[in-house]
Amino acid sequence: MLISFPAPRHKELQCPNKDLPGRHRCGTTARQSGNPFPKKECASVTDRQAHDSRFLYPLHPDDPADDSSACHVVLVEPEIPPNTGAIARLCGATDSVLHLVHPLGFKTDDRHLKRAGLDYWEHVRIRHWDNLAAFLAAQPKARLHLLTTKSGRPYTAARFRPGDMLVFGRETKGLPEEILALYSDRCLTIPMCNPHIRSLNLAMCAGIVLYEAIRQRDAHSFPSGVADARTSL
Amino acid sequence: MLISFPAPRHKELQCPNKDLPGRHRCGTTARQSGNPFPKKECASVTDRQAHDSRFLYPLHPDDPADDSSACHVVLVEPEIPPNTGAIARLCGATDSVLHLVHPLGFKTDDRHLKRAGLDYWEHVRIRHWDNLAAFLAAQPKARLHLLTTKSGRPYTAARFRPGDMLVFGRETKGLPEEILALYSDRCLTIPMCNPHIRSLNLAMCAGIVLYEAIRQRDAHSFPSGVADARTSL
Repeated sequence: MLISFPAPRHKELQCPNKDLPGRHRCGTTARQSGNPFPKKECASVTDRQAHDSRFLYPLHPDDPADDSSACHVVLVEPEIPPNTGAIARLCGATDSVLHLVHPLGFKTDDRHLKRAGLDYWEHVRIRHWDNLAAFLAAQPKARLHLLTTKSGRPYTAARFRPGDMLVFGRETKGLPEEILALYSDRCLTIPMCNPHIRSLNLAMCAGIVLYEAIRQRDAHSFPSGVADARTSL
Repeated sequence: MLISFPAPRHKELQCPNKDLPGRHRCGTTARQSGNPFPKKECASVTDRQAHDSRFLYPLHPDDPADDSSACHVVLVEPEIPPNTGAIARLCGATDSVLHLVHPLGFKTDDRHLKRAGLDYWEHVRIRHWDNLAAFLAAQPKARLHLLTTKSGRPYTAARFRPGDMLVFGRETKGLPEEILALYSDRCLTIPMCNPHIRSLNLAMCAGIVLYEAIRQRDAHSFPSGVADARTSL
């Protein structure tokens, strides 16, 4: 279950890894006399998981329904920091959950990553996964939508539901062929009309598909998910 | 009227400004014995306009219906090269027209701009405008949609038609307040649910709104505009 802590009162007592993506600015630090997060604690993914699960949320939740009303964006081995930064900002803006499937092509303290995400990291729910197999094993197949240029099914043909996961591959290679074959009934594409252009920018793709999912999700009920989204569609 | 020339046969006779955005690779160069484009000819916007209007298309068309079936993306004084590059690629992929309203915050041969657009520039229809006033004066008001964070009307509430123009402001400041006031009935926003996040990446915004316009445009007729876009929406 996601537990939200208040912001720390004393900056000097924040987690030294506060610049890592995710809500690392745990309120507990403000109530302690010393620094509870030695630098080495969060040096690796494993350690970061320990840190996250202790103070915020489990990284590999047993019950994915924790975020049943949110949309999920899954980046598999992203390579270009500004793309991940822009997508993190997108997820923060829409209260979506961002899943980062390791290995990443950059360090999570990359200056480009931080710049693209600006000062928004603390508003983003991020989950780290060791690899794609671990991520897929934890998800019901029906919740996944795999975005690829190798499908003929447009993303607008999908019926998105709350809790669905939009999965995007690496900028240069996309998702692995074997995964696309295994989940062929869950593949979607963003249609294009110029065969000379192979793909769009990854962050742009995430924005296009996520907002279509939100448009469908909020088209009838208009909960608090997206303010003022009273579309007549 | 848009006149499409064949690609040049001899690379050594190409326009020296071939790296500028737009279809500068005019076929005429291949049929001439010398270089018809001295470097200084296209050094400024005015000169580039002369070059374009001579060999490709009028930059300020008297009849905007030239591209009546296409969507148009208008960037007003864009500042960040990778954004413009990614949007140029988007326009090429969807056969949309890209309007660049000067002054730009970068040179059009900026390496980031080229990298983001990859080798797609020749597939993009680009028009340059001296300034926002000149652009607005040439457009019927009803064709414009101004994207801003200062509107409460979601982009999904708009009824997009072929030939509509999606206007985006500068990355840091958006569109000028006086223009938003003047066109208040043409303003749209991309809804967000987190008040701490002020805006999304510009290229992402362009992708979200343009694909919604295309979805609406092709929802019933499904022309050749977007391949395989047979959505049931």
